[in-house]
Amino acid sequence: MGGLTVMRALKARLPNESFVYLGDTARLPYGTKSVDTVTRYAVQASAALMKHDIKLLVVACNTASAAALPVLAETLAPLPVVGVIEPGAQAAVAAAPDGPIAVIATEGTVRGGAYVRAIQAIAPHMPVVQQACPLFVALAEEGLRDGQIAELAAQRYLGPLLATMPRPRALVLGCTHFPVLIDTIAKVAGPDVALVDSAQTTAAAVEAILQEKGLLNMDGVMAPRFLATDAPGRFAHLGEIFLGEPIDPGAVTLVDL
Amino acid sequence: MGGLTVMRALKARLPNESFVYLGDTARLPYGTKSVDTVTRYAVQASAALMKHDIKLLVVACNTASAAALPVLAETLAPLPVVGVIEPGAQAAVAAAPDGPIAVIATEGTVRGGAYVRAIQAIAPHMPVVQQACPLFVALAEEGLRDGQIAELAAQRYLGPLLATMPRPRALVLGCTHFPVLIDTIAKVAGPDVALVDSAQTTAAAVEAILQEKGLLNMDGVMAPRFLATDAPGRFAHLGEIFLGEPIDPGAVTLVDL
Repeated sequence: MGGLTVMRALKARLPNESFVYLGDTARLPYGTKSVDTVTRYAVQASAALMKHDIKLLVVACNTASAAALPVLAETLAPLPVVGVIEPGAQAAVAAAPDGPIAVIATEGTVRGGAYVRAIQAIAPHMPVVQQACPLFVALAEEGLRDGQIAELAAQRYLGPLLATMPRPRALVLGCTHFPVLIDTIAKVAGPDVALVDSAQTTAAAVEAILQEKGLLNMDGVMAPRFLATDAPGRFAHLGEIFLGEPIDPGAVTLVDL
Repeated sequence: MGGLTVMRALKARLPNESFVYLGDTARLPYGTKSVDTVTRYAVQASAALMKHDIKLLVVACNTASAAALPVLAETLAPLPVVGVIEPGAQAAVAAAPDGPIAVIATEGTVRGGAYVRAIQAIAPHMPVVQQACPLFVALAEEGLRDGQIAELAAQRYLGPLLATMPRPRALVLGCTHFPVLIDTIAKVAGPDVALVDSAQTTAAAVEAILQEKGLLNMDGVMAPRFLATDAPGRFAHLGEIFLGEPIDPGAVTLVDL
């Protein structure tokens, strides 16, 4: 579901492009699964998308980007494959060049340490602190973007994280669900911490690649198509929270991976 | 994960029986999935358990019981198959014979209306009100059994449900995750609402069937064995919240369905 926040940023930045989105609703969430399982699922999902004659693949999930990006890039070459981790890491270093950088993500992304590696590949001695925020996923899926429960959950997770010394100057939203809660996160984090939403930075990265490869569409756009591996009606209904606009249930096709 | 609350009740009631538990950790949660998908997964899981020479199958998940019990019973006959819905419905009617009865469950169980049907099969005109409580699953998996977040979530869900008139006299915990939160649920529901935990009533139903069929074990018991479809280490770690005792990671085997 969370990948729709990335699609929202992509649609806003690239209004002339056509999108096919696959939500693996039968097997979500990926955030608590092992690297092997997530990789297998991501390879299956990308194969289903390849049938739609795509020119670029966005892995719009931090857990899948962390687990499977090298395998996907190799499997699908020469198709460009863009994950959400590296653009997020670049934006975080740009926002807080002297650090420290804080990362909130799913259990799987935190455990794998992909953001730490990606940030330190750019800024080798950058201190990075991490926190898994599993309740945020459930809050986002219930549309509880603000109010007391969301705020208490944010305090629970961000309080200890932002109390580390020296105080983090940037906070990476390292799960595609989290932009739904950005107002509450911003309120709890306070004005002196830059929030880095990798949906935005990924959209910029995709634009740069399309431009470089001469693949940008200049005119004409098809309505987005959606594939879901289970419960397409629920996908359409819940998806509006993440995409920020209604999804036509008739545009969602059930696929079996 | 939640099925472990049922296993906990079964172990307490049937200390001479040996247990094999399968947690479909690769594909949880079932509560948001369609009936077809849940049924397919439940059939696969039961096939894996049949290889362990079981004498009875407990479907220790409300969503799977609601979706797949008839198919499982038919597929596995003459093996006895016990779900958690019917024992829960019986206990609810016994606790509040004049009703009304309130049911809290996952989205899937509420949408399918299995408790309403099971309760009204016993007491045809019994009024039943339902509420999906998706945050409870995330709270239980994070071990947040009490405190302000759990209490606010309980107020959010139970407030409107228990304000229906006439006021419900029994509240069915219609998801196997929810017994973890029972103290908070009891606090918010107040003393005049009977809480029905289907783990307890299912254990009683299993005992009755084993007794009737002469299958009760009188002596000797093997240590429980656990099968998980992903991340067995996480299963062992998180499982303690639900089972109420530590799970030896060496007793958890990874299986592929």
